[in-house]
Amino acid sequence: MSEPAERARKLDALDELGGKRVEFVLDDVIYLDGNSLGALPAVVPGRVEDVVRRQWGELRIRSWEESGWWTAPERIGDRIAPLVGAAPGQIVVGDSTSVNVFKALVGAVRMAGEGRDELLVDATTFPTDGYIAESAARLTGRTLRPVAPADLPGALGDRTAAVLLNHVDYRTGRLHDLPGLTAAVHEAGAVAVWDLCHSAGALPVGLDEYGVDLAVGCTYKYLNGGPGSPAYLYVRREWQDRFDSPLPGWNSHAEPFGMRAGYEPAPGALRGRVGTPDIVSMLALEAALDVWDGVSVDAVRAKSLALTDFFLECVAAYVPEGRVECVTPVAHGERGSQIALRCDDAGDVMKRLIERGVVGDFRAPDVLRFGFTPLYVGFADVERAARVLAQTLA
Amino acid sequence: MSEPAERARKLDALDELGGKRVEFVLDDVIYLDGNSLGALPAVVPGRVEDVVRRQWGELRIRSWEESGWWTAPERIGDRIAPLVGAAPGQIVVGDSTSVNVFKALVGAVRMAGEGRDELLVDATTFPTDGYIAESAARLTGRTLRPVAPADLPGALGDRTAAVLLNHVDYRTGRLHDLPGLTAAVHEAGAVAVWDLCHSAGALPVGLDEYGVDLAVGCTYKYLNGGPGSPAYLYVRREWQDRFDSPLPGWNSHAEPFGMRAGYEPAPGALRGRVGTPDIVSMLALEAALDVWDGVSVDAVRAKSLALTDFFLECVAAYVPEGRVECVTPVAHGERGSQIALRCDDAGDVMKRLIERGVVGDFRAPDVLRFGFTPLYVGFADVERAARVLAQTLA
Repeated sequence: MSEPAERARKLDALDELGGKRVEFVLDDVIYLDGNSLGALPAVVPGRVEDVVRRQWGELRIRSWEESGWWTAPERIGDRIAPLVGAAPGQIVVGDSTSVNVFKALVGAVRMAGEGRDELLVDATTFPTDGYIAESAARLTGRTLRPVAPADLPGALGDRTAAVLLNHVDYRTGRLHDLPGLTAAVHEAGAVAVWDLCHSAGALPVGLDEYGVDLAVGCTYKYLNGGPGSPAYLYVRREWQDRFDSPLPGWNSHAEPFGMRAGYEPAPGALRGRVGTPDIVSMLALEAALDVWDGVSVDAVRAKSLALTDFFLECVAAYVPEGRVECVTPVAHGERGSQIALRCDDAGDVMKRLIERGVVGDFRAPDVLRFGFTPLYVGFADVERAARVLAQTLA
Repeated sequence: MSEPAERARKLDALDELGGKRVEFVLDDVIYLDGNSLGALPAVVPGRVEDVVRRQWGELRIRSWEESGWWTAPERIGDRIAPLVGAAPGQIVVGDSTSVNVFKALVGAVRMAGEGRDELLVDATTFPTDGYIAESAARLTGRTLRPVAPADLPGALGDRTAAVLLNHVDYRTGRLHDLPGLTAAVHEAGAVAVWDLCHSAGALPVGLDEYGVDLAVGCTYKYLNGGPGSPAYLYVRREWQDRFDSPLPGWNSHAEPFGMRAGYEPAPGALRGRVGTPDIVSMLALEAALDVWDGVSVDAVRAKSLALTDFFLECVAAYVPEGRVECVTPVAHGERGSQIALRCDDAGDVMKRLIERGVVGDFRAPDVLRFGFTPLYVGFADVERAARVLAQTLA
């Protein structure tokens, strides 16, 4: 047994999250793409079958009340809350991340008030955030300015209404300093909006603790909610009364079944709801969240860092120097739960890796991206992935 | 056998859609709430199970390509197209109806151009349309004016940018004159947007034929897509190049995987997409649409009118005169696929009706609403429903 393989055996034996793996449907593929689509939790198929066959098929319309469909967005929001450091009553689930970014940004600009005419957006963020921010700026008459997170402090000022930042860079895996940047945004008197797509479920976020104003995130990556499962919106309790959504659908009405012509927003997080919730996908997500019972996000983070450290160690041991370049920061405080390796033929390499049973993804133009989901990825997987990578690169 | 019961037997024997009933999961409940949540098509559970267990569970990320997930919004849009009289390439599925109303209205105002400062909305429409229209008007600097459909021709003018109308009134079941009102909107140089939630799947719509500009609809009523299944957006082909969405998410980008900082909209209907499509719910809908194979919407409409006529006939025969008042128009050309009966104690009556196995719904303050889905409601159901209603009202 090679030295890294021996190390992997020991690390797996000590892994306190190792027992979680059996709660997922896995095979002999090394799945390092949970940061794109999480693996299927074993509890989900049976629950979805119940939702379809019994709740929809037998109870039909009665399920809106009897099966708890109507309250699902806030109930599931409260299940996500502890994973991102939020007290209950501040998160609702529903719509896509893009739609929630729109609600959050228009809401943020309105919170900031008339005098502030600039909207700053993380220039390195996943593109949709920038596109939607541009639309929010256009519709609210603000100017959009893309700024790299590192340059943010110098860009903030009296004109800044709101700032949209991504917690983890989807390409490089760089973790941004949420406490520090949020504090800087607040010092400038602006509203801080965070996109948690690549951090929620992989590391502690601390929304309440660090005073984040608004946040959004998807649920199909580290939260394993299923393909395109509904996203969520966090509105800090102190802001809820002033949160003025650009999508005031009937589900956010104070009295939705009053069917009144005039709009009156519901109190609390409910204000972030829009239309009829997408029940089948939403309850698949609810089932998927069961795997978090008894899991500490700190333990997840510790394992995530151990996994990515170990992957870098194995890559160093197996892959000839200079063949790939790691673009993910080495410092723990700056690293999410993925490793991005640059090489000229990344597209082709990833194709061959997948053929050999190691699934990551390619991000144009030259990045091999490997995501490490601590709930189901083990150290032996990591060693094998690095070994197959080295063979593929050879 | 009573005279109506005998008539029901004969009508069922002649029903050319009678054979469709076995394609749904039904029991001895008379389900007259398919205009709120359609019954479960029998093909759905197995297909959803495949989506969850095999496509997600085994193929995982590969399914975006191999299981056709990525193209689902436009593929399923093309399945809905013939049901609403649209040629392929003009409908995408995704998001809720409310979100699609927002895209359509902001898009419509932008199509209409700067000179037109008024947005008209059907004053009798389902409330969410009015709330969203108000937001669209506010964000685009237009004035919102609610107008009853009957008063629309007099309200149109040079100032009108766009008009949002509901094809069938959700409360009364009144069918509005889509060809005539669309022509009137066009004569005023404005853009016509229709909400098809209560008509699609129940009667011919003729979007292409009558020159409708934009349309939205849900899929969980007469299209039986499941609770909160994704809605759709129709953008007439001639307008697609000018459709400027307020929700330009990455799925609507000309090159979504190019991950480019600048937004460039995709050609065609794809421009109506926003974020990652909600696959489980969307593919449940796709399976549900199988029941439409070989079904003519004209046959559905003919049966729908026969069902509602027969219901009125049975109510007249069984219910003492004056006990309820029908608020649905008697003229076929003005009737959707539901019958709304007004009575003072409607809330209580509906509760007792449901206890007796006849499921409709109550709309505040005083309406009993009964929806008739021609694919699975038969004439004997209608006779029994009226009989139980009479007993309940006695």
